[in-house]
Amino acid sequence: MNEMEANQFREFGKAMIDYTAEYLENIRDRRVLPTVEPGYLRPLLPDQAPQLPEKWEDVLKDVEKIIMPGVTHWHSPRFHAYFPTANSYPAIVADILSGAIACIGFTWIASPACTELEVVMLDWLGKALGLPEVFLACSGGKAGGVIQGTASEATLVALLGAKSKAVAAYKTKHPELKEADIISKLVGYTSSQSHSSVERAGLLGGIKLRSLEPDSSNRLTGDIVERAIKEDIESGLIPFYCVATLGTTSSCTFDKLEEIGPVCNENDVWLHVDAAYAGSSFICPEFRYLMKGIERADSFNFNPHKWLLVNFDCSAMWLKDPTWLVNAFNVDPLYLKHDQQGSAPDYRHWQIPLGRRFRALKLWFVLRLYGIEHLQAHIRKHIALAHYFENLVRGDHRFEITEEVLMGLVCFRLRGSNDVSEALLKRINGRGVIHLVPSKIRDVYFLRLAICSRYTEERDIDVSWKEVKEAADEVLLAQK
Amino acid sequence: MNEMEANQFREFGKAMIDYTAEYLENIRDRRVLPTVEPGYLRPLLPDQAPQLPEKWEDVLKDVEKIIMPGVTHWHSPRFHAYFPTANSYPAIVADILSGAIACIGFTWIASPACTELEVVMLDWLGKALGLPEVFLACSGGKAGGVIQGTASEATLVALLGAKSKAVAAYKTKHPELKEADIISKLVGYTSSQSHSSVERAGLLGGIKLRSLEPDSSNRLTGDIVERAIKEDIESGLIPFYCVATLGTTSSCTFDKLEEIGPVCNENDVWLHVDAAYAGSSFICPEFRYLMKGIERADSFNFNPHKWLLVNFDCSAMWLKDPTWLVNAFNVDPLYLKHDQQGSAPDYRHWQIPLGRRFRALKLWFVLRLYGIEHLQAHIRKHIALAHYFENLVRGDHRFEITEEVLMGLVCFRLRGSNDVSEALLKRINGRGVIHLVPSKIRDVYFLRLAICSRYTEERDIDVSWKEVKEAADEVLLAQK
Repeated sequence: MNEMEANQFREFGKAMIDYTAEYLENIRDRRVLPTVEPGYLRPLLPDQAPQLPEKWEDVLKDVEKIIMPGVTHWHSPRFHAYFPTANSYPAIVADILSGAIACIGFTWIASPACTELEVVMLDWLGKALGLPEVFLACSGGKAGGVIQGTASEATLVALLGAKSKAVAAYKTKHPELKEADIISKLVGYTSSQSHSSVERAGLLGGIKLRSLEPDSSNRLTGDIVERAIKEDIESGLIPFYCVATLGTTSSCTFDKLEEIGPVCNENDVWLHVDAAYAGSSFICPEFRYLMKGIERADSFNFNPHKWLLVNFDCSAMWLKDPTWLVNAFNVDPLYLKHDQQGSAPDYRHWQIPLGRRFRALKLWFVLRLYGIEHLQAHIRKHIALAHYFENLVRGDHRFEITEEVLMGLVCFRLRGSNDVSEALLKRINGRGVIHLVPSKIRDVYFLRLAICSRYTEERDIDVSWKEVKEAADEVLLAQK
Repeated sequence: MNEMEANQFREFGKAMIDYTAEYLENIRDRRVLPTVEPGYLRPLLPDQAPQLPEKWEDVLKDVEKIIMPGVTHWHSPRFHAYFPTANSYPAIVADILSGAIACIGFTWIASPACTELEVVMLDWLGKALGLPEVFLACSGGKAGGVIQGTASEATLVALLGAKSKAVAAYKTKHPELKEADIISKLVGYTSSQSHSSVERAGLLGGIKLRSLEPDSSNRLTGDIVERAIKEDIESGLIPFYCVATLGTTSSCTFDKLEEIGPVCNENDVWLHVDAAYAGSSFICPEFRYLMKGIERADSFNFNPHKWLLVNFDCSAMWLKDPTWLVNAFNVDPLYLKHDQQGSAPDYRHWQIPLGRRFRALKLWFVLRLYGIEHLQAHIRKHIALAHYFENLVRGDHRFEITEEVLMGLVCFRLRGSNDVSEALLKRINGRGVIHLVPSKIRDVYFLRLAICSRYTEERDIDVSWKEVKEAADEVLLAQK
């Protein structure tokens, strides 16, 4: 073919739809972690692109032959690493439409539907989570939501907004100071348990971020933040930003938001709440106690692309006052100006990149085609499965649970030194039936089992537990 | 339905494939710019998500009823605003597969195929463009390519790499200096004609970036950069970064890379080349003279998602030495460590976000299903169409061409004061048949007509020219 014409697209596209359904419905049968070595792929491909078009049938065959042997199957019920990343049929279909329209929604005029659906979907989603009105665009104020690519970007964006707010406030009080001097005095706070991207946001933004030690249950508390703020004010620094985590990556622990909020508010410190994984659970009213105090935050972020069945990338962020962000980033060339500026958000000012896809379609499709009730059922099922695994672990005296199980993550280890648990993980991943990653808090090494797939059933957890148990048998036998 | 089961997905997905083909093949018939007013969409939707699942047939109907009236049709041959954004059938199908696999490729082990296909595809692409070996992973050194989300991110990533390199070098020479003091002395260079995202990268990175005035043909030259570097060294600053643009957004002008390279190299200034739009043209050997001197650059970026038929987001970036970047961003929690670290790139260190989709599939599908020859034909056709429009403009004495036409962009205006050209643009966009955006250089206002759609033919350009001419008739008549 000389170009992929519409008719060939219809054939190829539909073949890929079938391939997708086959892949996902039978994902259990594939080895979760590939056995390839680094560099496996290059020898399987020509060393340059072809001059002439190939047939789509050949490309599709190569997917199974060349790509699949190197894929880690994140949607297999045998995958328990990291946190889940979402995958659903409605989101995949929405992305086809997004690819067809393929608009770049940097301003309202660049595609009004792209901006406006995002505004309304973030309201729908905020309401579904029980977020206070003060975060929603429908409240009629400045507030509203935006889709970021990742939680890392949301943390950075909030930091930059906080920075511009703090600099402006301090300049008003001390007009004699240079901006660079103010910036060098800014200090932000986070927990040593917060996600690595928080530390990275500080590096990127060129800002001092203090990594505070949480309390004995690994939670950042109001006292800890208050003490740090006081110390820094005494040393002549300017506290300006704090990140509280609801559901840390290591152990799914929740910082004491209810205590931290008032401390931040009293000290004019921008409070950003990172609920990347656990935020999806707030769609169930019974888990909202875990975000008590959220009304004190300045910005809130969670990833529907983790646990709410919306494919990556879709990280939902709400800001009470996006003005600081818009001002911080406002670079306004003529070719991006338009007549309706100010009457709808120009989302390019709300994010790091300029370009943006039509991602609100995924949210719209998922919310309508699942409905709130089914999304709640999805969350509840994962949490129930985590408790199911927890009970299996608790029933075996060789193991201990290292953190209260609140969401879909179980943290556990073999009793005794770290070595045995390290050996256990190595053996589990080596056997290749299931895949887990470890973590370590205060020098205690443990394994994290996350419920990740929307296909996971109790019988899958039985398989995973059998793997863990048998690997433990082997490790403990080898130690004798 | 209780969940979107596989069979329903097969139906819905295939219906969306058909909808996509219908939409794109008949896109000419839609009004390019919507007539909706800000806020049009909210009243058309319920004020919250449904409790129970809806039918996919209803969602698909609403796409046409609610979304399409608010879409700016970027792929219509009547769309001449900004620069093109890519759209092709192979890329759309590849994105379905990416959505099905839905892995997050932050490390090699997180999905080896995702990382390795990206490494090889960036080699394929680099070779197709005639990039020097020194940028390619297959050269065996540290160099290699990566897919960024946008050119804005590439500019920021290069700036952060340059910053970490400069700080390290200066610290070695002056161990007595604090990092903050060094950073406050860093100064970068760009042209006042470079993209707004370059200025923004400076703001984000908290770094001084000087916006230099280009020469009388709007090109940044070696002399201009050298003069600025000398001035700044004399003032005690540390020059560290320079962005040269190949194909500016305003007028598709090419900075004098061949002169700027040696100046940057001699002064240890990291040279980043932003060829976001025009870079795709280098797939045709006859346009490579426009990147002469590229071997002197430290990093090079262009957007296949603009002009090379790979849907957004796919911004290709090559770095001669990514070590500086990797070191700058290296935050390494246990849960992201793996045994093969170091033997393949862990792309999380090469970018701002942590998460990343399997985007190399789009490149692979597009390169194989078009083949180099057809991609070359696509570029050549767009450039020929630009010259076709240019000749129509040149044949009408009321108009002038304001910039040499080298790629698929024609910059033109009505002779006389800016007012008439401003009135012309207003009238053109108001008539609603075609869509353009303006720009202004040294107070001269002009219109930009970009060839954007892969469906554009000479007869479409005839329509666009007719619109321009008739709008000019009206404007000039009204002025009498």
